[in-house]
Amino acid sequence: MLIRVLGCSAGGGFPQWNCNCRNCSSVRSGKSNFKTLTQSSLAVSGDGKDWVLLNASPDLRQQINVAPALAPNNGSARSSPIKAAVLTNGDVDHIGGLINLREVQPFTIYATRRVLDVIESNCVFDILAANVVPRTPLELGRPLQLTGAGVDLGLTAEAFDVPGKIALYLEDPSAGMRFGTQVGDTIGLKISDPATGEAFFYIPGCAEVDEVLAQRLKGASLVFFDGTLYTDDEMICQGLLDKTGSRMGHISISGSLGSISALRNLGVERKIYVHINNSNPVLDESSQERKAVEAAGWEIGYDGMEVRL
Amino acid sequence: MLIRVLGCSAGGGFPQWNCNCRNCSSVRSGKSNFKTLTQSSLAVSGDGKDWVLLNASPDLRQQINVAPALAPNNGSARSSPIKAAVLTNGDVDHIGGLINLREVQPFTIYATRRVLDVIESNCVFDILAANVVPRTPLELGRPLQLTGAGVDLGLTAEAFDVPGKIALYLEDPSAGMRFGTQVGDTIGLKISDPATGEAFFYIPGCAEVDEVLAQRLKGASLVFFDGTLYTDDEMICQGLLDKTGSRMGHISISGSLGSISALRNLGVERKIYVHINNSNPVLDESSQERKAVEAAGWEIGYDGMEVRL
Repeated sequence: MLIRVLGCSAGGGFPQWNCNCRNCSSVRSGKSNFKTLTQSSLAVSGDGKDWVLLNASPDLRQQINVAPALAPNNGSARSSPIKAAVLTNGDVDHIGGLINLREVQPFTIYATRRVLDVIESNCVFDILAANVVPRTPLELGRPLQLTGAGVDLGLTAEAFDVPGKIALYLEDPSAGMRFGTQVGDTIGLKISDPATGEAFFYIPGCAEVDEVLAQRLKGASLVFFDGTLYTDDEMICQGLLDKTGSRMGHISISGSLGSISALRNLGVERKIYVHINNSNPVLDESSQERKAVEAAGWEIGYDGMEVRL
Repeated sequence: MLIRVLGCSAGGGFPQWNCNCRNCSSVRSGKSNFKTLTQSSLAVSGDGKDWVLLNASPDLRQQINVAPALAPNNGSARSSPIKAAVLTNGDVDHIGGLINLREVQPFTIYATRRVLDVIESNCVFDILAANVVPRTPLELGRPLQLTGAGVDLGLTAEAFDVPGKIALYLEDPSAGMRFGTQVGDTIGLKISDPATGEAFFYIPGCAEVDEVLAQRLKGASLVFFDGTLYTDDEMICQGLLDKTGSRMGHISISGSLGSISALRNLGVERKIYVHINNSNPVLDESSQERKAVEAAGWEIGYDGMEVRL
C-alpha cells in the first residue's frame, strides 16, 4: 500500500482564515519553523494507480493539484484515478470536499448510514448524481472490499465506532451531554491489503482511547491518529474559543488521559499524528512540545507525507 | 473601490480534477502560455480595509491565503476583514466556499430569497450559525447598503435578474425547458460607491444579453462578464460533456449572439471576462481566440487581478 497524507490540519486549516494566534500569524509571515497545512484527508492505493480518499476536505481541489498521482491518467478526455472516498464522520472538513468531485465522474462514497443520511439530506451534494456516484453504507465491524467505477481496488475497509461526537452543525443542544450523538457518527478505519496482509488504522477524530480501542490497536504496524490538541484547554487559554478538546470530541496529545500515554504500551510500530489544530504547539517545529512528541516515538504528519506498507 | 479577482475560472477550476482536455493537460504540465485558475469569485473594498466577497467559491481558503488584504488585520486573536458575501446564484462554485468561513466569525450573507432558501435547506451551512452570520435577502432592483459585523461597508449592491438557469443540482427534469428556473435564481450585481459615484457590474452567469440588460450596461465604467465558453458547442466538440453553453445557462463569447457582439456598441469603458471554463480556447495565451477577444477590446481576467475604480 502507498499512503499519502493529503492534508494534516484539523478543520479550518493552517493558517485558519480568521485566526491570528501565534501559530497562524507565524506561518502567515513565513517563519521557517512553521509549515502550512491543508485540511484532514489521506489517500491510499493498493497498486499505485487507483486511489481511495479517506475523507474529502474542503481543500481537496488544491490537494489533488499538487499530487501528480491523482491527476487523470488514462488518456481519455475525462478520467480520474480516484475511485472511492471513505468518510469517518459528517464534519464539514471531512465531507465538504465531495463537491469538488463533480463533473459526472464515477466513484463510490462509503460512510455509515448516519453520515450518508447527512449527505443525502443536503441537496448540494446532489451535484454528485447518485446514479454516477453510488453511496455504499459501511457496517461497523464488517470489513468491506472497496470498489469504484467498476474497479476492484484491492483493499478492504473495516469501520469501527470510536468515542466521539456528532458533527458540530448537527448538534442538538436540547439532547444533553452527548448533543444527539449516536453510534456511527464517528468511526475509525482499518484499511487492509489482503494481497500482502498489511493493514493500518486511520482515526482522525477520537475523544478517548477506551479499552476496546486499545485492544484493537495493539501491535498495529501503523496508526494515523487524532492530534487535534496538545492540551485539553489550549484553545481557551489562547483566547480562541470557549471550548475544551473533550467538548469538541477530541482527546489531547499530552496528559495522563492523552494519546501518548494511552498508546505507549500497545506495541504500535509507527504512530503519526494527523488532524492537527492550528492552536497546537507541535506545529512549531522548534517547540518543546514537538520534541516531547517525537521523543515519545510519534511523528507529526505533514501535507504530502508518503508512507509505504 | 478596489476590486480583486479571487478566482477567474468557471466551476471545476483550471485544471479541473478529472479533465484531460488540451487546456487542462497543458496547464498541468506547466506550459508557459497557460496559467492555473481557481473558481469564480471577486472581492471588493470601498476603503481598502474591509471587504465584500462576490460569491464564495470552493477554493476560497486558498484564495484568502494568497491575498494579504484578506488576512486577519486587527490584532485580536480572531478577526477578518471579510464582512459580507453577496451571492449571484446557488451554483456549488458560488456557494460551496461559505463553509470555509466558519469558526464563529460574524459577517453577512446577501442573496435572493431563492438562493437563501437553498442555503437554509442544506444543514451543512448551519456551520455558519444564523445568529453569528445573518442572511439578508436581496430584492431585485433595490440598491442595498452593505453592512457586516457592525460595519457600514460604504458600498451598495443592486441585484437584477439576468437570463439564466437554476443551479444544476436543483434542476427538475420534469419541469420542461427551464428545469424549474424562477426569477432570482441567477442575478447580476451593480456595486456602487456612493462616496465617489463609481460603479461596476458583476455578471458571472448569463444566458443572453437581452434588451433590458443591454440598456442597463450602456455606458458603464466596468463590467465583469460571463466568459464561460468561446463557442456554444465547444464542450461537445472536445468530447467533454454532452451539453451546449445555452443548455448550461451561459452565453458564448463569439458568434452573432455572443457577448462580444452584444456589448460591442454599448460604450462600456472596460470589459473583463471572468468565470472562464477550462475548455475555453482563450485560456491559451497564444491562441487566435485570445487575440480576437483582446482585439475586440475585452480583457481576460486572472487570479489576483486588481482593478481600482
